[in-house]
Amino acid sequence: MERLIKTCLNPTAEYRGLKMKIHDVTLRDGEQQANFAFRREDKLRIAEALVEMGVHRIEAGMPAVSAEDARVVKELAARKCPVEVFALSRMVPDDIRACADCGAQGVILEIPATPYLYEALGWSLDQIIEMSIRGVQVAKECGLYTVLFPIDGSRCDPEIFDKLVSRVAGTGNVDALAAVDTLGVLTPEGAGAWVRNLREKHGLPIEAHFHNDFGLGTANTLAALKNGAETLHVTIGGVGERAGNVSCQEVVAAAELLYDVQSGIDLSKSWQAARTLEDAAQFEFPVNKPIVGKSLFRLETGVAASFAEKVIGTRPTVIFPFHWNVVGAPPPLRCREEERPGLAPPVLPVRRSFVHRRPPGKGFTRHQGVGQPKSTCADPSRGSRDPGRRTVRSLNGTCGDG
Amino acid sequence: MERLIKTCLNPTAEYRGLKMKIHDVTLRDGEQQANFAFRREDKLRIAEALVEMGVHRIEAGMPAVSAEDARVVKELAARKCPVEVFALSRMVPDDIRACADCGAQGVILEIPATPYLYEALGWSLDQIIEMSIRGVQVAKECGLYTVLFPIDGSRCDPEIFDKLVSRVAGTGNVDALAAVDTLGVLTPEGAGAWVRNLREKHGLPIEAHFHNDFGLGTANTLAALKNGAETLHVTIGGVGERAGNVSCQEVVAAAELLYDVQSGIDLSKSWQAARTLEDAAQFEFPVNKPIVGKSLFRLETGVAASFAEKVIGTRPTVIFPFHWNVVGAPPPLRCREEERPGLAPPVLPVRRSFVHRRPPGKGFTRHQGVGQPKSTCADPSRGSRDPGRRTVRSLNGTCGDG
Repeated sequence: MERLIKTCLNPTAEYRGLKMKIHDVTLRDGEQQANFAFRREDKLRIAEALVEMGVHRIEAGMPAVSAEDARVVKELAARKCPVEVFALSRMVPDDIRACADCGAQGVILEIPATPYLYEALGWSLDQIIEMSIRGVQVAKECGLYTVLFPIDGSRCDPEIFDKLVSRVAGTGNVDALAAVDTLGVLTPEGAGAWVRNLREKHGLPIEAHFHNDFGLGTANTLAALKNGAETLHVTIGGVGERAGNVSCQEVVAAAELLYDVQSGIDLSKSWQAARTLEDAAQFEFPVNKPIVGKSLFRLETGVAASFAEKVIGTRPTVIFPFHWNVVGAPPPLRCREEERPGLAPPVLPVRRSFVHRRPPGKGFTRHQGVGQPKSTCADPSRGSRDPGRRTVRSLNGTCGDG
Repeated sequence: MERLIKTCLNPTAEYRGLKMKIHDVTLRDGEQQANFAFRREDKLRIAEALVEMGVHRIEAGMPAVSAEDARVVKELAARKCPVEVFALSRMVPDDIRACADCGAQGVILEIPATPYLYEALGWSLDQIIEMSIRGVQVAKECGLYTVLFPIDGSRCDPEIFDKLVSRVAGTGNVDALAAVDTLGVLTPEGAGAWVRNLREKHGLPIEAHFHNDFGLGTANTLAALKNGAETLHVTIGGVGERAGNVSCQEVVAAAELLYDVQSGIDLSKSWQAARTLEDAAQFEFPVNKPIVGKSLFRLETGVAASFAEKVIGTRPTVIFPFHWNVVGAPPPLRCREEERPGLAPPVLPVRRSFVHRRPPGKGFTRHQGVGQPKSTCADPSRGSRDPGRRTVRSLNGTCGDG
């Protein structure tokens, strides 16, 4: 099966041989998406799907502020799955100890980094630094892998940020530093340069924790990877508050298929992980969400049905960017009421086409649908709010006008 | 109102002074989204919203294959709005003339560029070139601004691509060349380098027409802009087939707020344009879609209600990446049944917080919600499939546990 995308335009040299580690925050940051609320059993199911995909780490919750989270961290840690179990904590000694008590292997220690956050709370930078120094010390005493997580770091004055990080990391109790773009305001150039800078300045492994407010989360995370951030914080399908975190599936698919990076993730399990999350969260991804959406292998246009039929069984990447098996999606469906999976013959809906039936100079057969409104291939499982306004035709098993 | 994002991490020098032109393809490529079908009046409403936003061009349809499209192009052209009306056409003289007959000012001339497309249709490269030379000649004879649009260009062998473009552009009848990433397989690095290359090689204005299959469409389009593509093909909220085209709102918001580019677009009209499209297409954007989603100014976590109340009226960009007015969104709502717009006092749902109530050393007030499941701030207008499983509490007008 073809995997790597067939274009010579994407430079891959800077990515070649890079290592990456997926730190999934679906159960913690992802749960902050509006109207999400996971029960304990939901969290465990999602965690199982993540382990199935092969993610390297799961940030399972915040034990000190939620007994449910504490139970989830404890249960996951006890299972001894091939995944590192992490927890989030404030810079509060008892909170940090609670993470260790649950069996977490590592802790993400959050602390406000921008003056307008900590000053509004009545703190000075020195107090923030003092809390953090105490916090990382407790974490190390508990044997936890310790990640310093300065909230809103991307909007922080670099001098303040560097002072905070230098002082806290100077204790030798910080294992990694998170580059945190809380409000999703970085650009790929900004994310890459920031990560490179932080690595050089502090000599610590960098973890990229980004958000998607401008639709740049995936590109920013890949730019961070290129510039030395090995650990990437993501969620299934990018769920999370406001415009979400960064999609695990997009990052992994792009890394594997566009940049030729070996992610260690089984991309073919990523479709199912999205379905598990949908079920647990009682929500649905947009059907056109990259990599995980349910409509990605439908076509309504551009290639005539006869052409689609010709290539879809033998070389589907003529009309799709990658084979559905790569992401574990079901094969394209017959677009009819008796819709069923299978390749022979998969008939796709069609509208318009650049396809002319005869070579130039021999006269053109004008597209059969001239002057007709677009035929819609309605999915019978999806209700239409106003089905009467759509023209749905079925021509010998096709749903289009091609 | 603060507009430009407050971070010094994003380099903007390479973008400063760049000109950009938005070529909106919602009515043509965007309509290919699964289950979309616009009536004539829908298209005109959408076009009005686009004109309101100030987009520079509208690609309104394919007159030769749809009488509806022909009417829409004709009506839009006749209105003499401050927008250029374009149409899409195959390389068929009569089709091209139909565009001019409708009053279009320009034409996007599509032609398959990859051998596995044109060979499957029984054509040779020479035939493709011959058709294209004839096509652009007819277009220029009709007085149309002529954009050569080689389908699937990003996956084409560069030698074949260059031969096609050089021969066709060599006639002097091509006004601009579209860099077309039909299957969304470019990376930002690839998109940028390709655009720069094409400009240098062919000396033509480049138009970036990208798709979002890996979630990189916005970043790719911005990379194209940086590398000299002035005209950017986008759709409202990124609608389009498979994972969609590229979101106009994301590109404009990032250009304006992150890169300090003057787009000429009124971003404050972009929220309404998304709503118009939703109504016309009888669909809904995901509530967390960047820039256009309806949940972007809700928060469920991270900042205590008291803190949110403190800053939201005076400095909302502490907790949001930009002010809602920038994109024309309504202000945050009271998160209660008697939900109503207004800033005083906007109470946001909260879960957990880094917020400690007293400075360190004076003892911490543990978060009130310890051990409680997350409170959900249900939007009363949204049905829940299983409302019973959620714990919704209301504490003196708040919806959270902070």
